[in-house]
Amino acid sequence: MESAAAKSTVRVAVLGAGNVGGALCKMLLDDADGIEARAGVRLELAGVAVAHPSRARPGIPQELITGDAKSLASDPSVDVVVELIGGIDPAFVVLEAALAAGKPVVTGNKELIAAHGAELSRAATEAGVDLLYEAAVAGAIPLVRALRDSLAGENVWRVMGIVNGTTNFILTTMADEGVTYEEALSEAQRLGLAERDPTADVEGIDAAAKVAILAGLAFRCDFPVEDVHREGIVGLRGIDIAFADKLGYVVKLLAVAERTDVGEIPKSRESDPVPEVSVRVHPALVAHSHPLASVRGSFNAVFVEGETCGELMLYGRGAGGAPTASAVLGDLIDAANHLSTGGPGRAVPRRTVSTRPIDDLRCAWYLNMDVLDRPGVLGAVATAFGTHGVSIRSMEQVGLGEEARLIFLTHVAREGAVRATLDDIRQLDMVEHVGGVLRVAGDEEDE
Amino acid sequence: MESAAAKSTVRVAVLGAGNVGGALCKMLLDDADGIEARAGVRLELAGVAVAHPSRARPGIPQELITGDAKSLASDPSVDVVVELIGGIDPAFVVLEAALAAGKPVVTGNKELIAAHGAELSRAATEAGVDLLYEAAVAGAIPLVRALRDSLAGENVWRVMGIVNGTTNFILTTMADEGVTYEEALSEAQRLGLAERDPTADVEGIDAAAKVAILAGLAFRCDFPVEDVHREGIVGLRGIDIAFADKLGYVVKLLAVAERTDVGEIPKSRESDPVPEVSVRVHPALVAHSHPLASVRGSFNAVFVEGETCGELMLYGRGAGGAPTASAVLGDLIDAANHLSTGGPGRAVPRRTVSTRPIDDLRCAWYLNMDVLDRPGVLGAVATAFGTHGVSIRSMEQVGLGEEARLIFLTHVAREGAVRATLDDIRQLDMVEHVGGVLRVAGDEEDE
Repeated sequence: MESAAAKSTVRVAVLGAGNVGGALCKMLLDDADGIEARAGVRLELAGVAVAHPSRARPGIPQELITGDAKSLASDPSVDVVVELIGGIDPAFVVLEAALAAGKPVVTGNKELIAAHGAELSRAATEAGVDLLYEAAVAGAIPLVRALRDSLAGENVWRVMGIVNGTTNFILTTMADEGVTYEEALSEAQRLGLAERDPTADVEGIDAAAKVAILAGLAFRCDFPVEDVHREGIVGLRGIDIAFADKLGYVVKLLAVAERTDVGEIPKSRESDPVPEVSVRVHPALVAHSHPLASVRGSFNAVFVEGETCGELMLYGRGAGGAPTASAVLGDLIDAANHLSTGGPGRAVPRRTVSTRPIDDLRCAWYLNMDVLDRPGVLGAVATAFGTHGVSIRSMEQVGLGEEARLIFLTHVAREGAVRATLDDIRQLDMVEHVGGVLRVAGDEEDE
Repeated sequence: MESAAAKSTVRVAVLGAGNVGGALCKMLLDDADGIEARAGVRLELAGVAVAHPSRARPGIPQELITGDAKSLASDPSVDVVVELIGGIDPAFVVLEAALAAGKPVVTGNKELIAAHGAELSRAATEAGVDLLYEAAVAGAIPLVRALRDSLAGENVWRVMGIVNGTTNFILTTMADEGVTYEEALSEAQRLGLAERDPTADVEGIDAAAKVAILAGLAFRCDFPVEDVHREGIVGLRGIDIAFADKLGYVVKLLAVAERTDVGEIPKSRESDPVPEVSVRVHPALVAHSHPLASVRGSFNAVFVEGETCGELMLYGRGAGGAPTASAVLGDLIDAANHLSTGGPGRAVPRRTVSTRPIDDLRCAWYLNMDVLDRPGVLGAVATAFGTHGVSIRSMEQVGLGEEARLIFLTHVAREGAVRATLDDIRQLDMVEHVGGVLRVAGDEEDE
């Protein structure tokens, strides 16, 4: 422990004392000796900024609590600033000021990093200090560090996974208990797994922020969160989940960031071209045999595929106070080490990427439509598929009295062609309703 | 890319041009521009040391090839040394000299790190340079970095996984095809997955080196490879694999590094005590429902459990030239970054740990014995269990003419008590043979 003893104490300001901030403060207060023994750095809680400083925080001495985040972050005695307030305002201005004052910043704020990561990264690079955000994506799973450092030289082809626990709970509940979306959402709210206003989760906004961050790391670019193609799970029907199950799939809300130009780049190349990518969040059918199919509740799991690393999967607790605080602690120790060695963390290069239009993506589709049970209807529907070159892999017909329900799985097809097919089908008099329209994940190679 | 352009080129010496070294050289030669675009550092292959320099290496210019590893490693124009020779001699002396000369070292040599990691780490710390070895354990899986950095402050309780692809292939083949150990080994050798002398794999020597390294990282200690309790898969019988399957388990060669004092440490503690650990490699029954049960062939997967991070799993290609070279490249970029920022990588604190004697470990057991089919035999066997306080969870009897086969699953018991029970049972006249004796993984909580 000689090297650790030679290091001075690193004083940490924690902004926000919710689930994650509270868990972090507890670790810093109760286990400073243990952390020093394991990590070789002494971390001291310099202060905690909260919105309501007069409210008692069990375990945190009152004299450490303040209502003034900005003053705490710019206190000259503070070495590192940890931001766990969430949201853009006031986090953004407080962290900009901290970085400008030469203080390394650790944050778990996915919304802020997705929206202003580029500006904050530039500010950190200019100041020669760290901006670290492992806790912003997938809780305790060391995904940010894996993409940023371990795979720094890797030609990453795809990052695909489950990064939102609330929607994963809702989908798991719908599948297991055969309940509706609304019932599963109520259950999630009752258990405290969904907020009263669940929009950020169920509309895929939370997952979109995370996948924008992952795309930035995987492709070494600033990927604007506005450019993430986003579809949530609102209105997803139990019937489609049940049919998917019968066909050998589960429905998951997937976050996907992938190169769409793989195979189009010459193996031996003079220089790396502008990568073309697709970054998106949408529900998708995942085969029962796929490891992502068995990820349940608040667990997260993310696949990374690259040219030389092959297929990697990282799995763990994607939410919760302690697991997320664990990710913050790892970053905090990084920042503290960099302070003592003098070298800041590395900046990720920022390349230009282009986004492939969603209509040009290719995958297989699950389609569910209600039609009048009359001669000729199947022919008319099949003709619409044929006109747009969409090939049918399997079809099932279920009688519903006057009507029939048709469930199709297509072969891999251009998304634009599938959309045009559905437009045509919706125009047919005999078609009452086109219900479930869902992508099938991981079937690119089925042709 | 301004920051990258400002950095000078980092010259890399590669020692060894086998599967991994060859793949790395190809990446450095063919994709230097791509690596620079992604990682922000320019890596240039300065030279390649091989045992037979006159042999042609397709794709590597002859003028880069030398037979003199030591001279290449100490060449003043070389910035970083990558060692992929394997084994202790001459790797150890070459790397000691490189570190002494102030050159960062990246190695994939598990044998060397397990045997001399402590000395090499000290030499690296003294010289203020990196010693990085992500590629020494589990190929492309970023496990070393996760334990060293992401979980630097974490109180890691357990690391458990499959880290040897050869034995995993043999066990998978025995289970799937119902063949003997010898037949599965021959198949592995035929496919180039096992060496002609398979000792290092099948005796668990390779896995023991890896788990010693993982224990060192997880518990922040120097864990001597000689202290790893090691049992291989030689002589494992198909019949036990078949019975295990029937009971709901697969047999896997597990590498385990765990704290044995969890629950014995006060939650709020003044200082971290000397950790007590168990580090071992042995075959074990893994429940079909456990994620490790579905890890096949050359894939590796490792669970990490800690006080705050909860359960993490990392999964990926644990062997192969390109995946392992991917891990080397990640380390190489780390070392190159540290050269340009001036800060070396961190040293892992080296604590003292104690090892719990194997007899004091507790787990459930699978036991298979052939007995004479006579009245009283079951009573005598059951008495032996009772005498030593080993409780039986389930028993199955299979008739074999004059004999009977008894298959027991025990409740969790002290290993010493199980051994004593078996000693007593072997003394019984009516017991012909005690065959399969295997631990059951992950059943600590069944009582």
